[in-house]
Amino acid sequence: MFRNQMPRYEVLSEDAMATLDRGWRRLMTEIGVEFMDDRALDLFRAAGQRVEDRTAFLDPDWVLEQVAKAPREFDLQARNPANSVHVGGDSMVFSGVYGPPFVRDGEVRRDGTMADFENFTRLAQSFSVLDSAGGVITEPNDTPLDSRHLDMTYALQTLTDKIYMGNVVSGVNARDTIAMTEILFGSRESIEETPALISLINCNSPLRWDDRMLEAQFEYSSANQPVILTPFILMGAMSPVTIPAALVQQIVEALSGIALSQLIRPGCPVVFGSFLSNIDMQSGSPTFGTPESGIGLLCTGQIARHFGLPFRTGGGLTSSQVPDAQAGYEALMTMMPTFLAGANFVMHSAGWLEGGLVAGFEKFVIDAQLVEMLQHEFTPLEIDEDSMAFGAHEEVGHGGHFLGAMHTMERFRTCFYRPFLNSSDNYERWMRNGAKDTAARATDLYKKRLDEYEQPPLDDAVRQELEAYVVRRRAELGD
Amino acid sequence: MFRNQMPRYEVLSEDAMATLDRGWRRLMTEIGVEFMDDRALDLFRAAGQRVEDRTAFLDPDWVLEQVAKAPREFDLQARNPANSVHVGGDSMVFSGVYGPPFVRDGEVRRDGTMADFENFTRLAQSFSVLDSAGGVITEPNDTPLDSRHLDMTYALQTLTDKIYMGNVVSGVNARDTIAMTEILFGSRESIEETPALISLINCNSPLRWDDRMLEAQFEYSSANQPVILTPFILMGAMSPVTIPAALVQQIVEALSGIALSQLIRPGCPVVFGSFLSNIDMQSGSPTFGTPESGIGLLCTGQIARHFGLPFRTGGGLTSSQVPDAQAGYEALMTMMPTFLAGANFVMHSAGWLEGGLVAGFEKFVIDAQLVEMLQHEFTPLEIDEDSMAFGAHEEVGHGGHFLGAMHTMERFRTCFYRPFLNSSDNYERWMRNGAKDTAARATDLYKKRLDEYEQPPLDDAVRQELEAYVVRRRAELGD
Repeated sequence: MFRNQMPRYEVLSEDAMATLDRGWRRLMTEIGVEFMDDRALDLFRAAGQRVEDRTAFLDPDWVLEQVAKAPREFDLQARNPANSVHVGGDSMVFSGVYGPPFVRDGEVRRDGTMADFENFTRLAQSFSVLDSAGGVITEPNDTPLDSRHLDMTYALQTLTDKIYMGNVVSGVNARDTIAMTEILFGSRESIEETPALISLINCNSPLRWDDRMLEAQFEYSSANQPVILTPFILMGAMSPVTIPAALVQQIVEALSGIALSQLIRPGCPVVFGSFLSNIDMQSGSPTFGTPESGIGLLCTGQIARHFGLPFRTGGGLTSSQVPDAQAGYEALMTMMPTFLAGANFVMHSAGWLEGGLVAGFEKFVIDAQLVEMLQHEFTPLEIDEDSMAFGAHEEVGHGGHFLGAMHTMERFRTCFYRPFLNSSDNYERWMRNGAKDTAARATDLYKKRLDEYEQPPLDDAVRQELEAYVVRRRAELGD
Repeated sequence: MFRNQMPRYEVLSEDAMATLDRGWRRLMTEIGVEFMDDRALDLFRAAGQRVEDRTAFLDPDWVLEQVAKAPREFDLQARNPANSVHVGGDSMVFSGVYGPPFVRDGEVRRDGTMADFENFTRLAQSFSVLDSAGGVITEPNDTPLDSRHLDMTYALQTLTDKIYMGNVVSGVNARDTIAMTEILFGSRESIEETPALISLINCNSPLRWDDRMLEAQFEYSSANQPVILTPFILMGAMSPVTIPAALVQQIVEALSGIALSQLIRPGCPVVFGSFLSNIDMQSGSPTFGTPESGIGLLCTGQIARHFGLPFRTGGGLTSSQVPDAQAGYEALMTMMPTFLAGANFVMHSAGWLEGGLVAGFEKFVIDAQLVEMLQHEFTPLEIDEDSMAFGAHEEVGHGGHFLGAMHTMERFRTCFYRPFLNSSDNYERWMRNGAKDTAARATDLYKKRLDEYEQPPLDDAVRQELEAYVVRRRAELGD
C-alpha cells in the first residue's frame, strides 16, 4: 500500500490552532451535540457528562481523555493478506466512490443497478491503486431495499479480495455485515483481533447524530470494527459560511462521536472524518473542488494530527455532470490537497461525478489515473552522487541528446512514471487513432478492464456459507 | 497583483541541497557551458574565467558573486500603472501561453494568425487574473517572418495596458522591441530606471547558449530589461533521466546565463528560469503535468530561493490535444505546484494545449479559471473569535440550516469564491441549458469576452509614433 513520506503541507499557525482549540471547547460545552439514541445519552450520563433532553454537553478535557483511548494507528485485514492495509501514520488507503443513486456510462445517465455495482467492484479489484471498492459504490436500485446490503456485501466479499466497508443504514444491516464478515474470516475472534470492516458514520450536521447511524456505530464499535466519524458539512448549509467555524464544528462533531465509540468499547479503532465543502450561495447547489474545500482539507489534516487520530478526507470530488475538463481539475483540486495533507483514509477516490449523485465509469478510470500519478509524485526523491549522473554529461556533451545515452538505456523502462490513460501522441497519430478525448479513452479502458477481470479465488465452503446466509436473511427480511 | 502569503512547500532536505550544491559546482567546473557568441566568451575571459574553444568553465564561487549582484526583487512597469507588477518575494506574475504555431478554436485546429494573436491579447486584457498576455502567444503565420515581431509588439502595446514580453528571435528584434517600448514609455531613461519589458532567454540544453538568444540577451541586459534565463529541459532528451541530474544541470545553465547578464550590466534584473518536464521514453514525445515535472517544480522553487533569485516556472501545461479531462488535470498538476512553490513569474498560465504546439481559446478560459481558483485557495485564512461564528450556532441550533441565518445573510455575497466557468447546476437544469460540457461553456465565455472587450485608451501621438516605427522598420526589413 502507499505510504506518503513527503512532508505535510501545514497552513495553520500555532496561534490559529489555539484559537480553534478555544472554539471547539466553547461549542462543545455551551451548545453541545444531539444524540438521537437513548443508549448513547445513557452512556454519557453514566460517565458523568451533562445531558439535557437529547443534547450532551461534553467536558472538553473528558472528551480528550476518551480520544486518547483510541489507537493512533491500526491494521485492517483483507481476505487476501497482500491487500491488508494500515490506517494511520503515513499510510494512505484509497477506496471507491460511495453513495451515488445514479450511474454514468458514456453518454447515458441512469439509475444504478446491481450489475453496475458489481462492475464497479470488479474495476476496483482491477486497479491496483485502489485499496478498496468501498461500500455503497452505487445504489443497486433494482434490488429490494431491505436486503440489498446483503447483495452488496456479498459482491464486495467475492468479487474483490480487498478490504471493504460496512453497511450503516441500520443496526440490523450492520449486524448482517458483521456476521458475513465473520463467515469470510472464519470467526468473530479473528475480526475482533484484527478488524476487517471499516464503516462510515455520518453526522447529521450541524451537531446532531441520528438514530440509525448511531445504531450502526454501536454494532461496529462493539465488534471492534473501526468507524469513520464524519461531520458532513457543506458550508453555508450545514455550518456557518466561515471556514474557521466549519473547522470548529467539525472538531466538535467528530470528537463527540469518537468519545461515544470509546464509551461503547474503550480502545476501539476510530477515524477522524471530514467531508467539507461549500454550497453555491446563489443556487444552493453543493460545489466541490473549491478553494474553500481545499483549504479546509489542509487544515483538517493538521487538526487530526493535533488530536493524534488517523483521519479521512479528500477524494476525487467534482460538481461536473460529465467527465470533462472541470471533472478533471476539480477532482485534482481535492486529490492534490488530500496528498498534501496526508489523509489516511480516502473515500471517493474513484468514480465520483455530479456532486456525488452519479458514479461514473469513465470518471473511475480518470480518478485511478490521478491517484497513481500522485502516488508517484509524493514519493521522495533519492538524491545522491550517482543520481546526478555526471558520467551521462561526459558521454553526451554540450547541445547533445540523452535519448541514446548509455545512462538512459540502462534506466529507460523505469525512470519515469508511465500513465495508462493520458495521451501524449502527436496530432497526426492521435487523429489516426480516432481522435479520442480522455473520456473516450476511459470508456475503452474500463471495458477492457472488465473483459480481462478475473475473480479472485475463494474457498467453496466459505462461498456457500455466505450464499446461504444471504438467502436465509433475505427471506427473513421479507424480500 | 497576487501575493502568495501561504507557506512554501519544500521537499529538499539540507543534505539533499548540499548534494545538489556539490553537483552543480562539479558540472560547472569540469564540463562547463558553451556560449555560441564571441562577446560572451570575451567577457568571461576578461573576468579571469577559463574559456576553451566555446566552452566557459566558470568558477562556482565567482558565479555566486555575479549572482549576488542581481536584484532579489524588482518592479516591472505597465503603461497603466495599476497593472505594473513586482517580480520576486511573494509576488506571482501570470502571463499567457508563449510560442505555439497552431491554434485550437472549438473543433478546429489550424495555423495561428495575427487575428488569433490579437484575440488572445484581448482575452489577456479581459481576464484580470492575467498580469500579461505574454509574448509570442501564437505565431502569426500570416505575417512576414522578418517583421512580425513589430506586429506582435504593437498588438501587445495597444490591445492591452499590461506588461508584455520582448521578442528574442535576434538582436535586431530585441532592439526593435526596446525602441518601441521607449516610444510607449516616453524615453530610454524611463525604462532603464524601471524596466518595462521582460524576455525569455532559453538555453539550448544541455549546457549550450545559442547565438541568437545571446544576441537578444545582450540587448535586453544592456538596457536593464529583465531576462528569464531558462534551461529548457525535457528529461531523457535534454538532460539525464534522473531528476537530481536535471536539477543540477538546470542550476548550471541558469546561473551561467545569469553570470553573463551581470557581466553585460552589473545589477541588471534577471530571473532564474525553469522549464522542466520529461519525455515519454517509449515514443519520445514530450509529456507535461507529470509527477516528475511536479517534483522538479517544487525543487526548483527551493533552489531559486537558495540562490536568492526570483524564479520562473510552472503554468497550465498539458500534452492533451483537446480541452478535456486530461487537459484539466494535467494543467492543475503543474499549476498547483506552481503555487506551492511560489513561482514569481508564471509563463504559459493560460492557453497551452498539445505540448505547447497549440494555443487554445477554450483552454485559455479553463486556465484563467484555474489560476483564479488557486489565488483564492492560496490566500491565508483569517482565524479569530469572530470567524468561529458562535452566534450563528446559537441562532440555528442542532440539525438546523444555515442558509437563512443572519450570519449567512450578512456574508453570502463574498463568503465563497464564485467561479465563472464551473457548473454546479443540477442535472435537470444543466440539460435545459444545453448539456454543455466545460469546453462548450468556455467557447461561449471566450466569445462573450471578445464581444465585450474594450481597448484600453492610448495617447494618439504615442500610437502614431508606434505605427510610424512599425511602418518604417517593416520597409527596412524588406517586408
